[in-house]
Amino acid sequence: MRVAFETLHGVLAASLRKAGMAEDRAGTCARLFAEASRDGVASHGLNRFPRFLRMIARGIVDVAATPARVTAAGALERWDGRRGPGNLNARDAMDGAMALARSHGIGCIALANTNHWMRGGSYGWQAADAGMIGVCWTNTQPNVPPWGAADPRIGNNPLVLAVPRRDGHIVLDMALSQFSVGAMAAYAARGDALPVAGGYDEGGTLTQDPAAILASRRLLPIGFWKGSGLAFALDLIAAALAAGQATHQISQDPEEETGLSQVFIAIDPASLGSDGDTSRIADAALEHLIAGPGTVRYPGAGTLAIRARSLRDGVEVDPAIWTEVQASAAG
Amino acid sequence: MRVAFETLHGVLAASLRKAGMAEDRAGTCARLFAEASRDGVASHGLNRFPRFLRMIARGIVDVAATPARVTAAGALERWDGRRGPGNLNARDAMDGAMALARSHGIGCIALANTNHWMRGGSYGWQAADAGMIGVCWTNTQPNVPPWGAADPRIGNNPLVLAVPRRDGHIVLDMALSQFSVGAMAAYAARGDALPVAGGYDEGGTLTQDPAAILASRRLLPIGFWKGSGLAFALDLIAAALAAGQATHQISQDPEEETGLSQVFIAIDPASLGSDGDTSRIADAALEHLIAGPGTVRYPGAGTLAIRARSLRDGVEVDPAIWTEVQASAAG
Repeated sequence: MRVAFETLHGVLAASLRKAGMAEDRAGTCARLFAEASRDGVASHGLNRFPRFLRMIARGIVDVAATPARVTAAGALERWDGRRGPGNLNARDAMDGAMALARSHGIGCIALANTNHWMRGGSYGWQAADAGMIGVCWTNTQPNVPPWGAADPRIGNNPLVLAVPRRDGHIVLDMALSQFSVGAMAAYAARGDALPVAGGYDEGGTLTQDPAAILASRRLLPIGFWKGSGLAFALDLIAAALAAGQATHQISQDPEEETGLSQVFIAIDPASLGSDGDTSRIADAALEHLIAGPGTVRYPGAGTLAIRARSLRDGVEVDPAIWTEVQASAAG
Repeated sequence: MRVAFETLHGVLAASLRKAGMAEDRAGTCARLFAEASRDGVASHGLNRFPRFLRMIARGIVDVAATPARVTAAGALERWDGRRGPGNLNARDAMDGAMALARSHGIGCIALANTNHWMRGGSYGWQAADAGMIGVCWTNTQPNVPPWGAADPRIGNNPLVLAVPRRDGHIVLDMALSQFSVGAMAAYAARGDALPVAGGYDEGGTLTQDPAAILASRRLLPIGFWKGSGLAFALDLIAAALAAGQATHQISQDPEEETGLSQVFIAIDPASLGSDGDTSRIADAALEHLIAGPGTVRYPGAGTLAIRARSLRDGVEVDPAIWTEVQASAAG
């Protein structure tokens, strides 16, 4: 079923206010959840919201906490997320990185002690909407076996890159497992097979069965050893710059995944003059990318198509979850 | 066969001086080539050297050109590589990024109009040796089909991440194709199959035969659509920040691949104090990564093992190429 974006946003905001979040923060936090569903990422939108409420109720997410600057060195700052709502902390951190980029050309905020940022792409769109190049990543709980082992020891550490463009930003938002846990759960819920192998079953055989992979917890990193190494390196950089937890220190229980480390980098291309105008460069590159035989999509194209449909026809929601969340907002 | 590192370095330097390079620059340029072979990356070391000489002879690489700063905005600078030797330009650019990081915590140099940087990992080791976190990438000629097409339209845009550690830096150096062109040529030369599928044959079937993939030019991006999107985004960021060429503007002829765009980011973790000491954080993470069943290697471990063997027993060289390069240095 579909509901109007404003209806979805309003119900989520009311639920967060009931959970104790201040009115303006509840509005922003709810908007980030609603926008994820609007853009086709319900796994980190409405569908994730009940778990978020549980983590608030258990005190894992502190609705009142705001991030605090710990140390600063020019264009580089370390912040403490103080276990506040992960999407609000991440939004503030990308805002902070952009403020630094306006002064220094580039800015970087390393954020420790935060919670799951939900849809990582949100902070890429945020940077691109302001005309900035955005690069950010987060570590996660151990949920992927490194290349050469069978038990989860590295995170799938989503990585986001955003390039502003007048006719639709280029925004890449990807977990470093071939499929995110959320994407795989969505395939499993629909009873669909994965389009390519996404991990191993309990017997150690590569499989396209999302349920078998979720059961074995043997997700495949993108590019085998390459994604395994990339996830490890990104984890170290985030933990070191934020002076926060690395993946091995984070609970493997999805209901207790907290204390994450994240990095937000913003670069202001306009600070170097107009020669490197990103819209012009991206337009020319896109023209060559999609020319010729085949069907090639650029990162962000699918999001924009789903967003347009959602704003026209309403945001698709899971009826059972929608009923549950409406109940959390009522009374 | 194996030759002493200093012998290899000396012959390469002599050859470069004969090709017109100034003595000190020839020493550094030769050392970067020799170190690539020493560290097990002969594809971008000795084996690549004859092509480098041909490109100097044809005027594609200007042995006398040094990079020039075009514009600057605090911690962000744009440089023009002026078609100088790619490894010297890249080394200078990472030095420049590190100088900015010492002042601003983070520094970024975008380099246009340069040549192939040879082994990208060199600039990661360079940053880590100075105690810095290093992140850099380059675009390339079109050598990989984007996801959804069969002809090469994107580059395999190698990406390097480096984290300093007292007992051996973590250095990830990876092309965004499942195998680099150089790695695939090395497998083909040895008559070996690839350990996993690396691309498609002329008939469009996934294959582990490196020769078939080099013939079809249908290399597989890591993670299918994910690596395809990542390569495209990195290309745009490099071209926009450097105001340089994007992949679609670069010749598909390997002997004429020039005018590349690159990004070098250095971050000084010490600028934020000692809480985020990268050695301590990396040591703890490594301990958990390699603990338990299986055989897990961290990025950089293989390099250090090959380097130690090379320094003990000599650097492995292809006898025919070694003879050819010795001849270029003689007389």
